Amino acid sequence: MSDEPLLVERDGAVATITMNRPERRNALSLDLMRRLIDAFEEVGESDATGVVLAGSGPVFSAGHDFADVAEADLDGARELLRTCVHLMETIQSVPQVVLARVHGLATAAGCQLVADCDLAVAGHSAGFAAPGGKGGWFCHTPMVAISRCIGRKHAMEMALTGDTVDSHSAAEWGLVNRAVPDAELESAALELLERATRGAPRSSALGKQTLYAQFDRPERDAYDHALEVMAVSSQTPEAREGIAAFLEKRTPSWRAE
Amino acid sequence: MSDEPLLVERDGAVATITMNRPERRNALSLDLMRRLIDAFEEVGESDATGVVLAGSGPVFSAGHDFADVAEADLDGARELLRTCVHLMETIQSVPQVVLARVHGLATAAGCQLVADCDLAVAGHSAGFAAPGGKGGWFCHTPMVAISRCIGRKHAMEMALTGDTVDSHSAAEWGLVNRAVPDAELESAALELLERATRGAPRSSALGKQTLYAQFDRPERDAYDHALEVMAVSSQTPEAREGIAAFLEKRTPSWRAE
Amino acid sequence: MSDEPLLVERDGAVATITMNRPERRNALSLDLMRRLIDAFEEVGESDATGVVLAGSGPVFSAGHDFADVAEADLDGARELLRTCVHLMETIQSVPQVVLARVHGLATAAGCQLVADCDLAVAGHSAGFAAPGGKGGWFCHTPMVAISRCIGRKHAMEMALTGDTVDSHSAAEWGLVNRAVPDAELESAALELLERATRGAPRSSALGKQTLYAQFDRPERDAYDHALEVMAVSSQTPEAREGIAAFLEKRTPSWRAE
Repeated sequence: MSDEPLLVERDGAVATITMNRPERRNALSLDLMRRLIDAFEEVGESDATGVVLAGSGPVFSAGHDFADVAEADLDGARELLRTCVHLMETIQSVPQVVLARVHGLATAAGCQLVADCDLAVAGHSAGFAAPGGKGGWFCHTPMVAISRCIGRKHAMEMALTGDTVDSHSAAEWGLVNRAVPDAELESAALELLERATRGAPRSSALGKQTLYAQFDRPERDAYDHALEVMAVSSQTPEAREGIAAFLEKRTPSWRAE
Repeated sequence: MSDEPLLVERDGAVATITMNRPERRNALSLDLMRRLIDAFEEVGESDATGVVLAGSGPVFSAGHDFADVAEADLDGARELLRTCVHLMETIQSVPQVVLARVHGLATAAGCQLVADCDLAVAGHSAGFAAPGGKGGWFCHTPMVAISRCIGRKHAMEMALTGDTVDSHSAAEWGLVNRAVPDAELESAALELLERATRGAPRSSALGKQTLYAQFDRPERDAYDHALEVMAVSSQTPEAREGIAAFLEKRTPSWRAE
Repeated sequence: MSDEPLLVERDGAVATITMNRPERRNALSLDLMRRLIDAFEEVGESDATGVVLAGSGPVFSAGHDFADVAEADLDGARELLRTCVHLMETIQSVPQVVLARVHGLATAAGCQLVADCDLAVAGHSAGFAAPGGKGGWFCHTPMVAISRCIGRKHAMEMALTGDTVDSHSAAEWGLVNRAVPDAELESAALELLERATRGAPRSSALGKQTLYAQFDRPERDAYDHALEVMAVSSQTPEAREGIAAFLEKRTPSWRAE
């Protein structure tokens, strides 16, 4: 296996980005976050339609690298956190559907990654935590992502206790789409990603970006935005082809091989 | 059975509005949406306290009529979508409690209707989908409504896969209040609507409208609004009668027959 | 037992604030709300790290005192409601973790109290309702808090029907963190509160306050705020000690006895 800290593989329409610092529990060092941003940007410009984000070794990701943090002054801390938030925004803005495939622990910014990916599938070995709550440096930014996926009381409990939530509760609470036995994790992740990438690529890309633009906004503001996007997109070749294929009961051309 | 595209019936305090284009799977043509808006506005001015929204035939509603959409230029698409959003806003602004009674499929704008009604009961035959995600024209506006009812990961999954969610998951995720056997759908819908319309009508109307005004807003903004509404409404005859009846342990007058 | 309307006890790091008007079902009279605000402010300045909010007698709290409301003119109603919202904001702004320990009914502003506490544990005897919906004075402000904990369709159902939700559904919907047998309520509440207060006190306080500041805001606005708080807090003695203790595999000093 390569000892590069980040692996990018391509298999058909799916790119797999693997954090590969198992000896550091895939901690999100400044270097690894920059590599992740570059990898997502590069894949973002490719013709891949889906991305799996995974970790190698026993955990998904332990979050920020405390070795980095221990040395950081205020400007250094800002740089780490800005890079981390920039990574989250990159994941949400690339045209591909991004799915986190989680085995083992996903903690702090590692849990934030899961929450900010479009979709997530967990193996039964997965665990999720915002451990800053039981320490001295609260998981403020991870909780922004986590609290957008789960209910407020559960978010408060994760944030304040710092305790690990198992894959079953994570699925029930809505932090991940589903939990499956570890042996089925890879196939379940691909199966969901395959179903999530059958649409015309430009249409799905605009779809996911518009979802992030309207989430969390008052319904009428959200409608103002979504209505205009939907009207304009009705005139795209993809929409025309999709509607024509539906009315003519044939497979739309973007799925033809 | 009538071949009018929209049926409005009145039984006691409940009006039932039935989409009646079964041969078109109750597709929301511009004409049907306008009739729905008119019907809700008319019922809105009546003394009905509750409204059931239903569909006749094998499905609840298949969403926009692709025959309309296929012909629409940008202005035409805007008109369709503005009319659709206007329908949603009308449902949320009428003083009555509006309950979607769903059997069979509710897809795209048909699913949006369910999400934007105040309450919803599904028969076990019901299915819910935002199928644009697997096509060429993404369900941008339906997702505004759907994503306000269910968690973000589930919303992403519905939006991107376009797959149908069964009634059991829809109830678990919060898209509908409950799922019941189809044979009990009508009675379960009426039972819930009856319980939701026992309040003084003007009080319930203000209640639902204020809920929509404060949902999605930061809690303190929401309190600013709700506090003033609640203070002013404390001086209404309904509030006075309700409090007096409670203290005097008698039935409030608006329930007297 | 004391006949003071509000009891404040201290046991180790935990303060317990008990509403003690059982003969009035712990109704939130103007006087009781003012005492609660004073008690939370006083505890807020103490070195307690957690607060249990409880009620004595057969119910948790029946909400506003209708005897007060019956006499209130518009200014009086505003004063009652402003005091109530001020109580909620005080609970959310004190540095301690506040947990509602609920047995019996929590209705109207009593249910709002549960929803606006950081955490909540319910005994199986607990029930939750916004009964204004079946009366003449809608629970506008209680619904602000309740609708931030549970899904929209469930919120609509509670608001409009006014019916009581049992402890099992309340846990499933996310209004409380968990439901336990009444006999285990006290120990379950303390166990959760203990786990939620292991962090460095100033860090946890900033954590909870930042959560309330970012909840309900669009994700990018929330990140802007949380990022700066997290960067600045990385330089605090608590963060430095937490990170050093982690790297040196020792217990952080704030937990030393």
